Amino acid sequence: MLTNPRSDRVKAVRALSRRSARERSGRFVADGPQAVREAVAYAGAGLLDLYVTQEGQRRHPGLVESARAAGRHVHEVTDDVLVAMSETGAPQGLLAVCRRPDATLEQVLAAAPRLLVLLANVRDPGNAGTVIRGADAAGADAVLVSDASVDVYAPKAVRSTAGSAFHLPVVTGLDVAATVAALRAHGIRVLAADGAGSTLLPDADLTGPHAWLLGNEAWGLSEETRSLADDVVRVPILGRAESLNLAMAATVCLYASAAVIAPH
Amino acid sequence: MLTNPRSDRVKAVRALSRRSARERSGRFVADGPQAVREAVAYAGAGLLDLYVTQEGQRRHPGLVESARAAGRHVHEVTDDVLVAMSETGAPQGLLAVCRRPDATLEQVLAAAPRLLVLLANVRDPGNAGTVIRGADAAGADAVLVSDASVDVYAPKAVRSTAGSAFHLPVVTGLDVAATVAALRAHGIRVLAADGAGSTLLPDADLTGPHAWLLGNEAWGLSEETRSLADDVVRVPILGRAESLNLAMAATVCLYASAAVIAPH
Repeated sequence: MLTNPRSDRVKAVRALSRRSARERSGRFVADGPQAVREAVAYAGAGLLDLYVTQEGQRRHPGLVESARAAGRHVHEVTDDVLVAMSETGAPQGLLAVCRRPDATLEQVLAAAPRLLVLLANVRDPGNAGTVIRGADAAGADAVLVSDASVDVYAPKAVRSTAGSAFHLPVVTGLDVAATVAALRAHGIRVLAADGAGSTLLPDADLTGPHAWLLGNEAWGLSEETRSLADDVVRVPILGRAESLNLAMAATVCLYASAAVIAPH
Repeated sequence: MLTNPRSDRVKAVRALSRRSARERSGRFVADGPQAVREAVAYAGAGLLDLYVTQEGQRRHPGLVESARAAGRHVHEVTDDVLVAMSETGAPQGLLAVCRRPDATLEQVLAAAPRLLVLLANVRDPGNAGTVIRGADAAGADAVLVSDASVDVYAPKAVRSTAGSAFHLPVVTGLDVAATVAALRAHGIRVLAADGAGSTLLPDADLTGPHAWLLGNEAWGLSEETRSLADDVVRVPILGRAESLNLAMAATVCLYASAAVIAPH
């Protein structure tokens, strides 16, 4: 039982709320029952350490048992220790330290993807995580993230994925122009989703393999980035709203793709 | 120029971050340029007081002028006063106190609506606001909110609407069962959106007037509430995600409706 909230181990976990520490160590935190459940199910040996309180163990016995059975390091900790480890202060009895999965663009392309998302300049961790969740739900093959975007392994982003960070490949640190070129070289059309688009979503050609290129929450995509795309598509706005938020627009676009690519 | 951040007026505005004060006074706060712009454009005399700093006036001269020209009460305030008024502490130079628009279910039904949203038990203000924004974008006629839901005039909810709270009628404090009965009596089908639904969204009948019934973020709709609906519809989950979040599911459902009701 770990009891000292000021121990070096606790400090090292807590430090993972900083991007620099995540990048240096190649580790990140998933906390709360939902994210931890998906980490146990999908992260394999990438789940490095699981920290549980007595209450967490009592409420999620199967989960902790699965982790132990799979040979993961399970540590019992006091409530104080878990709170000190977590950025949120409310980890609900469970916290996992995981290795960043290192998917590469080459691996993603080698799997002949049909539906991708490319985040060009997303700044809000909640939005980034919600887009990953939506991409997972709509059956996308991977999410690609530019070097100018928020770190999708920030605690708030991981929480917003609701476990989807463990479900599909996420490639980070990409150059947008080079990535668009690589996608097109592999026969993947690039569709920019932007309120300035001239093609309405219902008119967009979603038949072949394609990637949705999404920009910044506040200012969308730059003209330069838009010009890289094969088409610029806008979700129709039928009422008086100025726009949809990024995650909603992404989800609507992805489900439009899914209806064409994978009709049930 | 209002300069005293401890004045009774400032305290009265700040108090509107509490639900009890909003309900007692029938007032709420919209802060930041986007919400204030929509309040000036759409709230009419419902915009009771507009508070602006010098910086706010400098950055949004047209907006402040429009409010003055329309006969609204515009007050110049110091930065300290505006910060003291706002729950966020970052109102970006503009804050409006508005009267709660008092749309009623009868008014909404009298306008022969074709697409509605009924929030049964939504607890997160950000989700409620985002659903209102999505409903606006998808061209819904109104949003109906049950008495067990979060107050959609909470500051965080109003911000999440991105101005849409001023665009379409929002009726609050409704009893779910009575509202469903009233909708059906007016020939409006009620479709519950729930992961437990047996009908997949692409198979749902969206041709006639209908209302989407949405439940709680965490536990969806109760069996009792689901049983009130004409059909229970689920958004297909194609990947490994357990679900979509409430606002995403709502937006996907609403856009599916819009494609049938108002094809471009």
